[in-house]
Amino acid sequence: GRPLHFILGPCVIEGEDFVLKAADRVASIAADLGVPAVFKCSFDKANRTSASSFRGPGLDEGLRIMEKAGAATGLPLTTDVHLPSQCDAVAQVIDVLQIPAFLARQTDLLEAAAAAVLKHGGAVNVKKPQFVAPEDTRHAVEKLRGAGCDRVLLTERGSAFGYGRLVNDFTGLAVMASFGVPVVFDATHSVQRPGGATTGGNRAAVPPLARAAVAAGVDAVFLECHPDPDNAQSDGPNQVDFKDVPDLLRSLVRLREVVLNLH
Amino acid sequence: GRPLHFILGPCVIEGEDFVLKAADRVASIAADLGVPAVFKCSFDKANRTSASSFRGPGLDEGLRIMEKAGAATGLPLTTDVHLPSQCDAVAQVIDVLQIPAFLARQTDLLEAAAAAVLKHGGAVNVKKPQFVAPEDTRHAVEKLRGAGCDRVLLTERGSAFGYGRLVNDFTGLAVMASFGVPVVFDATHSVQRPGGATTGGNRAAVPPLARAAVAAGVDAVFLECHPDPDNAQSDGPNQVDFKDVPDLLRSLVRLREVVLNLH
Amino acid sequence: GRPLHFILGPCVIEGEDFVLKAADRVASIAADLGVPAVFKCSFDKANRTSASSFRGPGLDEGLRIMEKAGAATGLPLTTDVHLPSQCDAVAQVIDVLQIPAFLARQTDLLEAAAAAVLKHGGAVNVKKPQFVAPEDTRHAVEKLRGAGCDRVLLTERGSAFGYGRLVNDFTGLAVMASFGVPVVFDATHSVQRPGGATTGGNRAAVPPLARAAVAAGVDAVFLECHPDPDNAQSDGPNQVDFKDVPDLLRSLVRLREVVLNLH
Amino acid sequence: GRPLHFILGPCVIEGEDFVLKAADRVASIAADLGVPAVFKCSFDKANRTSASSFRGPGLDEGLRIMEKAGAATGLPLTTDVHLPSQCDAVAQVIDVLQIPAFLARQTDLLEAAAAAVLKHGGAVNVKKPQFVAPEDTRHAVEKLRGAGCDRVLLTERGSAFGYGRLVNDFTGLAVMASFGVPVVFDATHSVQRPGGATTGGNRAAVPPLARAAVAAGVDAVFLECHPDPDNAQSDGPNQVDFKDVPDLLRSLVRLREVVLNLH
Repeated sequence: GRPLHFILGPCVIEGEDFVLKAADRVASIAADLGVPAVFKCSFDKANRTSASSFRGPGLDEGLRIMEKAGAATGLPLTTDVHLPSQCDAVAQVIDVLQIPAFLARQTDLLEAAAAAVLKHGGAVNVKKPQFVAPEDTRHAVEKLRGAGCDRVLLTERGSAFGYGRLVNDFTGLAVMASFGVPVVFDATHSVQRPGGATTGGNRAAVPPLARAAVAAGVDAVFLECHPDPDNAQSDGPNQVDFKDVPDLLRSLVRLREVVLNLH
Repeated sequence: GRPLHFILGPCVIEGEDFVLKAADRVASIAADLGVPAVFKCSFDKANRTSASSFRGPGLDEGLRIMEKAGAATGLPLTTDVHLPSQCDAVAQVIDVLQIPAFLARQTDLLEAAAAAVLKHGGAVNVKKPQFVAPEDTRHAVEKLRGAGCDRVLLTERGSAFGYGRLVNDFTGLAVMASFGVPVVFDATHSVQRPGGATTGGNRAAVPPLARAAVAAGVDAVFLECHPDPDNAQSDGPNQVDFKDVPDLLRSLVRLREVVLNLH
Repeated sequence: GRPLHFILGPCVIEGEDFVLKAADRVASIAADLGVPAVFKCSFDKANRTSASSFRGPGLDEGLRIMEKAGAATGLPLTTDVHLPSQCDAVAQVIDVLQIPAFLARQTDLLEAAAAAVLKHGGAVNVKKPQFVAPEDTRHAVEKLRGAGCDRVLLTERGSAFGYGRLVNDFTGLAVMASFGVPVVFDATHSVQRPGGATTGGNRAAVPPLARAAVAAGVDAVFLECHPDPDNAQSDGPNQVDFKDVPDLLRSLVRLREVVLNLH
Repeated sequence: GRPLHFILGPCVIEGEDFVLKAADRVASIAADLGVPAVFKCSFDKANRTSASSFRGPGLDEGLRIMEKAGAATGLPLTTDVHLPSQCDAVAQVIDVLQIPAFLARQTDLLEAAAAAVLKHGGAVNVKKPQFVAPEDTRHAVEKLRGAGCDRVLLTERGSAFGYGRLVNDFTGLAVMASFGVPVVFDATHSVQRPGGATTGGNRAAVPPLARAAVAAGVDAVFLECHPDPDNAQSDGPNQVDFKDVPDLLRSLVRLREVVLNLH
């Protein structure tokens, strides 16, 4: 019976002090509940709706800050990569390289991530693209395995459902798990409402979806959390307030216990 | 903390003896687990893919058999209605009149069901059409309430997702609950694969979906079950074998306990 | 090289005088352009969003008015049927019985329409449900043929695409034509925006969609038209103003000529 | 009345001789019909389903071959770019830089393409992602314009419709045109059937879809064509045989004439 894992942290690096405080908060929540947690924060939001939106501090400064957060808390780290050329530097600092959904079919990015992880340790977490069926995520897994990387995770974050809306197909979780990889449920991006001048979201739907995913059998939950979501510099409408995280996690852990005792 | 309710039974009336045995089995499962259950069976499959498929015994004979099953077990009963002219007779025997998803926008059928239930007692359970958003199910609720019927349920059974496939939007459950009605999750029809010569299904997905729905907060679970699903006369690929029902229900009840203790 | 056919008329019977004027207008447009036209108007809108919306004059009064419109103009007539019990009376007056999309899987309605048309003459036009793949419309065709009716049409009116939106799959037109039936493109309901308090629409998209459908090879175009669409009692947002109909039809006829000369 | 433009050529560079012959064939088809044509071929298929699939000759060799094809035929050229670092070199040889649909939200790629085109001349053609609404393609247009590039095209190539299937929303063409850019219809990728071990397709649907798009008002048609599609090294199931191209183009030109005379 493996315990439920969590990937927690703000959407984007809003400054060094901001990140250190957020990592500290994640660490103490995880310690209080006795759950394994990975700290997540992005150095670059490379596909914002508008070119003038805040993107983050960039690779070098971002990695410097993340390294500090990892050292201060002892938490494993994750962040997303956008170009093959970033992977080696990222893997020197970050434990889990996350492949953004839009980029999950870019062979070179997957192979660079695999090579970097082989060299520096760590794992690769591929987000299921919104336009790809669960059964077709096996091609990404095979590309990574073909490049020598066996530490692979897959993340469900919704499928395109008409325009401006995503839907989670909970029958797909078992399909992805059948490829022999841990499956993560990204409750934050699953409630995005893409479209319009900025991407919106439906934060209220995060807890029921996360609970449903755990009951359906996922291995980990990804949740973006923020000390003040309504003023977040990215993805505010779907990040969870840090103060609401402990109760939510507690309920997920309890559901996990029921699931582990099913068989 | 309301207990989870169940709607259980075979898809279609395959004969009197068949129905009496099935109702007996539902009754003993419910008694063993101490859960409230309604017995479901259809007298007519009015929208089969092919005109030559088995449709059931029809209204009169179907009601006769269902009445006997109710009397023998004490279980409340549910079945679907297809025409306004059927509602009064059905409501004399059946407790919960079920409005098929395809017919949930037919004003006359809703009003006839409301009138029948007002006269003879009972409730109306409207299945969310595959082509209707959760927020738009309130129109069906309003049509029923406008006709004087306050005992209304809504059932999630999947939304059209491309061709030949349904998907459950678990963010819609709270939307439907916000209209002040109990929400049922129909795990059986949610895994249908419409299309082809006969409607297919994905029985293996029933348990994880049912668990997800309970964790997300539904009030009841609808499960078609059969003593020999592979030889069922309708909807075989998505009915659950009676022998697997107790374990599945037990897990759902445990998940419900976690959900009830959330707040 | 069959000429393009048209099905034209207002959504719902808004009174006798209204219908007679509308039929007259359809007749003179058809005569001016030398195109075959069928006059369409509904006696009952049986699936309105709200129970308090205008539904029309009902069966008897509706048929009386339609019969008068047919006699005055010589136009063939079409209207929709909602219950098996309506089909015989309707077929005595109406040439083309239209099966609403939501009801296209109701075996009894199809069989009653087939029987009525066999007895009184005419044809049955089945609207492809929003939740059915083009290849699966053959089941409706087979039900009708199995009941002895060979004069069958299929109508494309959009498929569910997420919530509140339809999309036309123009690759489906050839699939439906392959069943040996004329294929109609319903430009009016294809631009519906279902959902909300009343169904909305996008009238501006009617001409480009109708042109696209003709270029893709449909045999007929269905267009609801009204003398004052913004004040129509039903489906105003997607009906075309009568004054814009001749130019639109003229362009469709010219496109049809190109298509007929393709091979 | 602008004439219809065409973007024609094989999916991927299968060798120098192959490309020179293909470009010659495109040039003579265009000359025979008197239509403006751009020659298309890819130097790298960067998002193949499988890592072991043929990807093409790569950037340097690919540009060398394309330059030769352009010099031999006088045709303008187009190809796709995958990384910001490729744009400058590509724009030195290629007239229209094509942004793949999956990458159309990557701000850096759009800005690098804009800068390269500003420096070396040419235009940027953005493919509408399968997961983006037509109205939201304006963000890509604005990113390019914000970076100083006014020569922008948008290409429709289908939207995700359930799993493994795309659908063209022909109401979206006018929406994209409203941003003041020419709209291209990619008939080849619109009929892709993504999913499975290799991406499939439905070549028979290319002509009706292309005709529909022209009738709906697009400015250009993109068609991949090949001397032997069934043995193509990529996208065989949806490329058109060169021998069928002249007749198809002729019918599109005739439809365009009708559309140009509409107003």
